[in-house]
Amino acid sequence: MASTQGKVITCKAVVAYEANRPLVIEAPQAGVQILYTALCHTLGVARLDPRFYRSTRKKTCAANLNVTDPEGLFPCILGHEAAGIVESVGEGVTEVKTGDHVIPCYQAECKECKFCKSGKTNLCGKIRGATGVGIMMNDRKSRFSVRGTPIYHFMGTSTFSQYTVVHDVSVAKIDPQAPLEKVCLLGCGVPTGLGALWNTAKVEAGSNVAIFGLGTVGLAVAEGAKAAGASRIIGIDIDTRKFERAKNFGVTEFVNPKDHEQPIQQGWGTSVIVGVAASGQEIATRPFQLVTGRVWKGTAFGGFKSRTQVPQLVDKYMNKEIKIDEYVTHNLTLEEINKAFDLLHGGDCLRCVLKPYFKICKKHQSWVYG
Amino acid sequence: MASTQGKVITCKAVVAYEANRPLVIEAPQAGVQILYTALCHTLGVARLDPRFYRSTRKKTCAANLNVTDPEGLFPCILGHEAAGIVESVGEGVTEVKTGDHVIPCYQAECKECKFCKSGKTNLCGKIRGATGVGIMMNDRKSRFSVRGTPIYHFMGTSTFSQYTVVHDVSVAKIDPQAPLEKVCLLGCGVPTGLGALWNTAKVEAGSNVAIFGLGTVGLAVAEGAKAAGASRIIGIDIDTRKFERAKNFGVTEFVNPKDHEQPIQQGWGTSVIVGVAASGQEIATRPFQLVTGRVWKGTAFGGFKSRTQVPQLVDKYMNKEIKIDEYVTHNLTLEEINKAFDLLHGGDCLRCVLKPYFKICKKHQSWVYG
Ligand SMILES: NC(=O)c1ccc[n+]([C@@H]2O[C@H](COP(=O)([O-])OP(=O)(O)OC[C@H]3O[C@@H](n4cnc5c(N)ncnc54)[C@H](O)[C@@H]3O)[C@@H](O)[C@H]2O)c1
Ligand SMILES: NC(=O)c1ccc[n+]([C@@H]2O[C@H](COP(=O)([O-])OP(=O)(O)OC[C@H]3O[C@@H](n4cnc5c(N)ncnc54)[C@H](O)[C@@H]3O)[C@@H](O)[C@H]2O)c1
Ligand SMILES: [Zn+2]
Ligand SMILES: [Zn+2]
Ligand SMILES: [Zn+2]
Ligand SMILES: [Zn+2]
Repeated sequence: MASTQGKVITCKAVVAYEANRPLVIEAPQAGVQILYTALCHTLGVARLDPRFYRSTRKKTCAANLNVTDPEGLFPCILGHEAAGIVESVGEGVTEVKTGDHVIPCYQAECKECKFCKSGKTNLCGKIRGATGVGIMMNDRKSRFSVRGTPIYHFMGTSTFSQYTVVHDVSVAKIDPQAPLEKVCLLGCGVPTGLGALWNTAKVEAGSNVAIFGLGTVGLAVAEGAKAAGASRIIGIDIDTRKFERAKNFGVTEFVNPKDHEQPIQQGWGTSVIVGVAASGQEIATRPFQLVTGRVWKGTAFGGFKSRTQVPQLVDKYMNKEIKIDEYVTHNLTLEEINKAFDLLHGGDCLRCVLKPYFKICKKHQSWVYG
Repeated sequence: MASTQGKVITCKAVVAYEANRPLVIEAPQAGVQILYTALCHTLGVARLDPRFYRSTRKKTCAANLNVTDPEGLFPCILGHEAAGIVESVGEGVTEVKTGDHVIPCYQAECKECKFCKSGKTNLCGKIRGATGVGIMMNDRKSRFSVRGTPIYHFMGTSTFSQYTVVHDVSVAKIDPQAPLEKVCLLGCGVPTGLGALWNTAKVEAGSNVAIFGLGTVGLAVAEGAKAAGASRIIGIDIDTRKFERAKNFGVTEFVNPKDHEQPIQQGWGTSVIVGVAASGQEIATRPFQLVTGRVWKGTAFGGFKSRTQVPQLVDKYMNKEIKIDEYVTHNLTLEEINKAFDLLHGGDCLRCVLKPYFKICKKHQSWVYG
C-alpha cells in the first residue's frame, strides 16, 4: 500500500448538502480508509429533519451545553458506524500505525481528561469542542473539501467516504483477523444495546427487562439481557413483523402497544433512554414517578469506553460470545446510499452494510477502487 | 398511664373535611399518643389543591400504579411528621410496647417483603394497599370516627391528633432520652434532605452540589452535602430572605433565578427530585439530556429505611452529628393548626412544631390534657 502520509487523497464520499435531501456522491480530500460502513438509524432521523440534525450536532458535544447551536453545518459527510484500515498517521499519533485495522469511535476516549478519569462516564471531553462543530482540533479546520469548498466532519467520524480523518483519540485498534464487514457494527448500534443493559441499567440475573423498539439496538439489549440472566425479556414494538426475529435474540414475550387502550406497565425500576429524538421532542413525567423509585437514565454508546472496550467486543465476537452477523440484513455499495436510507425506513432492515467502491486484491495485498 | 388496650379513646384531632378549606378540630376515636407533630410542606400542597391531594394519596402507594385513584378520601386526619409514645399495642405487635418512645413512619418497613429485601429501595410493599386508600390492613377499615362517621387515615400516620393508630411496620422505636419536641422532625423533612444526598445522590467528597429551594429539606441537603465533603454547595431560591440562614447549614454560594434571563446551569450529573408537585404538573426534558450523561432520580424519605434508620438518626442528633433544633422556627398548639398553615406559606417558617393540647405533669409522670 503506497503511503500517502501528508498528501491529499482524492476519493469518493457521500456529501450531505442539506438535510432532508437525497445524498450526493462527491470527491473530497482526506487519512483512515473506510472499508465498510453501516447505516445507524440515528442517521435516519438526521437526514429527515434538518432542525434535528443541527441539534444532534450540538448535542454530540456531550457534557458541554454551552456550545452554541451552529447554523450551517452542511455540507458534511455523515456516517459513524464503520471499520477500516489506518492509511497514514499524523505527528504525535502513537497508538495506531499505518495498516492497523480500526473502528472509528464517535465517542472519543483520551484516557486523560477529567471525564475519562472520573470512572463515572464514557463521555470524553477532550475533542468535543471540535467534533461538536464539525472540525479538527489542532487548526479548527475541516479535512474535507469538494472543489475547494470545505465540507464539515460529522460526529468526529464521517464514515460515508472512502477515506476519512479522525482524531487519534477517536479510533480503536482491533484484531486484524476480525471480518471488517461484520465488526463495523461495533461502531455504534450493537455496543449501544449491550452496554445499555450491562453498563447503564446494570441488569442483574432474575430481573425483568422491557425493551421499547426491536431494531438493532433493541435486539442487542435483548441479547445483553439474556446473557445477564434476565427472567422475562419483554419486547414492545408497533411493528408486529419484528416479533418473530426478536425471539432469536432472547425476547420471551411480545407486546404491541396498538393492542392496548390503557398503559399496561406497572412497577418501578430503571429506565434507560437510548433513542435520539427529533428536535423539540421531549419526554415528561410526573415528578412523583421519580420520587417513588423510578430512575431515568440515558446511554451514549452503551456507556462503553470506546478505545478500551471496542477491541474487547471484537474479541467477544471472535469467541462467539456476542452476535453480529445476525444484525446484517442487507449489503450494498456506498453509491447506493439513498437506497440504503429507503431500506432504513422500510422496517425490514436491521443494518445495511455499505462497501465504499473497492475490491480487495488478495494477490497484491492492495485495494482496487471500483 | 392507664392502659386503654382494646378500648376506644376519645380525643381531639384535626379533621380535613375537604381540601382547600380551613381545618376543623374534632374528636375521633383512636392507639399511639402523639406528643409533637410538625407541619411538612407537602401538606401545604395537599391542603391547597384537592386534586393533588387525591393523587398524592394514590401515589403514596409507591410501587403500585394500579391502585385506582379513589374519590372522596376526605374526611381524613392529616399529618405525618411527629413523635409520640406507644399507648397500647394490638395482637401480634412484638417490636414496640406501651410506653416506648416512637416516631411514626409514613414509609413503612416490614423487613420481609420483596422490596424490603431487595436492597434497592426503602419503599415497603406490605401495607401500601391499605395506607394508600386511608384504611388499616386487617379489616380494611379506618380507626377514626367523628360522631359515627369514619374518618380516613393519611399516609399511614395521621399525626394531627392526640392519638393515632398505625401499623406495627410504621413505627420506629427511639431513644427515650431524645426530646420528642425536636426529634419529631425526623419523621419527614430532615431525613429526606440528608438522605437525598447520602443515599440517593450518593454525593462524594469534592463534588459540586446545587440545591433548588432552601426550605427545611433543602437546608438538610446542604447539611448532608457539607458532611459528605462537597466543595461547592450552591443554594438556589427565589426568596432572597432564605440566603442568610442557609449559610449556617453549609451553603457556600447563592443564586436567585430571578436575577438571570438565561439558564445558567451546565455540565451533567445526577438530579434528585424531592418536591411533591401539584397534580397535573410534569417535569420534561429532551431525551438527549439523559443520553449525554444526566441521571434523573427521586427520593422518598431520603431513601432511609424507616424503622432501622430513624433510631440511628435520633442517635446522631443526640451525639450532635446532625442538627434539628435549628429547623424548628415556630411552636404552636394543634388548636392553632390553621395559623400554622399560614406560617407555612409565609416563607419565614422552616418547621412549626405543634403540641396536641396537653402539658406534661413531671411529678405524676402522666399527661394533662389542655
Ligand atoms: N444513545 C446512543 O448512543 C445511540 C446509539 C445508536 C442508536 N441510538 C438510537 O437508538 C434508537 C434505535 O436505533 P435502531 O438502529 O435500533 O433503530 P430501528 O429503527 O432499527 O429500531 C427502532 C424500532 O422501534 C420501533 N418503534 C417505533 N416507534 C415505536 C413505538 N412508539 N413503540 C414501540 N416501538 C416503536 C420500530 O418499529 C423499530 O422496530 C434510534 O433512536 C437511534 O437514534 C442511540
Ligand atoms: N420526597 C419526599 O419524601 C419528601 C419529603 C418531604 C418533603 N418533600 C417535598 O420537598 C419540598 C420541600 O419541602 P420543604 O418542607 O423544604 O418546603 P419549603 O416550602 O420550606 O421550601 C421550599 C423552598 O423552595 C423555594 N422555591 C419555591 N419555588 C422555587 C423556584 N422556582 N426556584 C427556587 N426555589 C424555589 C421557596 O422559596 C422555599 O424556600 C416540598 O415540595 C415537599 O412536598 C418531599
Ligand atoms: Zn449510531
Ligand atoms: Zn477524555
Ligand atoms: Zn413530609
Ligand atoms: Zn416491606
